[in-house]
Amino acid sequence: MGKPNGVPAPAVRRLSLYLRQLESLAGRQQSTVSSRQLGASLDLTDAQVRKDLAYFGQFGHPGIGYRVEELIVQVRRILGTDKSWNVLLVGMGNLGRALMSYRGFAKKGFHVVAAFDNDASVIGQTVDGPRPIVVQRMEDMAKTVKSLNIRLAVLTIPAGEAQDVADRVLAAGVRGILNFAPVTLRKADCAVAAVDLAVHLEQLSFRLAGGDA
Amino acid sequence: MGKPNGVPAPAVRRLSLYLRQLESLAGRQQSTVSSRQLGASLDLTDAQVRKDLAYFGQFGHPGIGYRVEELIVQVRRILGTDKSWNVLLVGMGNLGRALMSYRGFAKKGFHVVAAFDNDASVIGQTVDGPRPIVVQRMEDMAKTVKSLNIRLAVLTIPAGEAQDVADRVLAAGVRGILNFAPVTLRKADCAVAAVDLAVHLEQLSFRLAGGDA
Repeated sequence: MGKPNGVPAPAVRRLSLYLRQLESLAGRQQSTVSSRQLGASLDLTDAQVRKDLAYFGQFGHPGIGYRVEELIVQVRRILGTDKSWNVLLVGMGNLGRALMSYRGFAKKGFHVVAAFDNDASVIGQTVDGPRPIVVQRMEDMAKTVKSLNIRLAVLTIPAGEAQDVADRVLAAGVRGILNFAPVTLRKADCAVAAVDLAVHLEQLSFRLAGGDA
Repeated sequence: MGKPNGVPAPAVRRLSLYLRQLESLAGRQQSTVSSRQLGASLDLTDAQVRKDLAYFGQFGHPGIGYRVEELIVQVRRILGTDKSWNVLLVGMGNLGRALMSYRGFAKKGFHVVAAFDNDASVIGQTVDGPRPIVVQRMEDMAKTVKSLNIRLAVLTIPAGEAQDVADRVLAAGVRGILNFAPVTLRKADCAVAAVDLAVHLEQLSFRLAGGDA
């Protein structure tokens, strides 16, 4: 089973959610699971589960369902989280420092190995995290990306600076960006995932304010 | 213009993005904007922008376009971020403490006024944030929600505890949940927005690993 092309993004997103469920089942020592059971906690039909997984391969066993540990290994391989990725972080404000200590990154094989800021008072500081890191000047990015083989960047910077920094990060050789800045980046040849907490909050307040409640 | 019902969630989500653009334009002292210009940085057509905004009212002026400051006021009112919301936070791990100091919440009118944990060694601790807060026992939640008129909860807890805590939070009178736990919550009569950083990371690594690149 090769790496599938053209899989719809929502199916890839649900693959992450299936993985979460499978890991939870494995933690409870459950060894097999049906597509119905796998979909239940995600409010998805068993047909939807089977259709989603079929994009990536044939994983079920007749009369058994899915073997939990086996499917976990397969899904991690498909998602690339069986590998280890070196990550850089730009922006050492509150959120940036917070993410430095976010254990979820390392758990998924994402290791923050470099940190950058354009504030002279922050450059040279040691920032705590799974491993302490000295904050570098933006000008040193290309060199660091190359020497540490960094493929992913996490941006926690103001909206107004995000596109410039994204361009610089890509020019340095990074191929994927996790963007916390509340602005949509013009994509070049890279994968961009946006995390905008304000959008989530506004969706909630819209509904609480009566817009859709 | 009343509060519209049944607006598709993606249109509400884009309304947040339009607001971000408008705030950026206002910061640059631009007083009017066309739907084409508003859509350009979001990769949306002018027709899409007009269709989205039409769900919420008639905002354009013939021959002028949109008045930036005027539209900002309207959109904030629609999204409910012209109001102030009291928020509680459950889970004082790394991410919880990080979010306590996340200035984006207060900027949008969301004020973290209470913090809870079930770890006896954490309860009673003072946690830094825009205002320092003493971490409370879960058992005191209902009383606090009532006395501080809390409508929203942010959950930064392990997946295995999330549903129980969500049920407790809702029973205490909270009406909306921003969920960072990597699990889908069974919704009762409340609005739930999920923030799963791992999903974002996995989407990126899927594409970097060659799945869709």
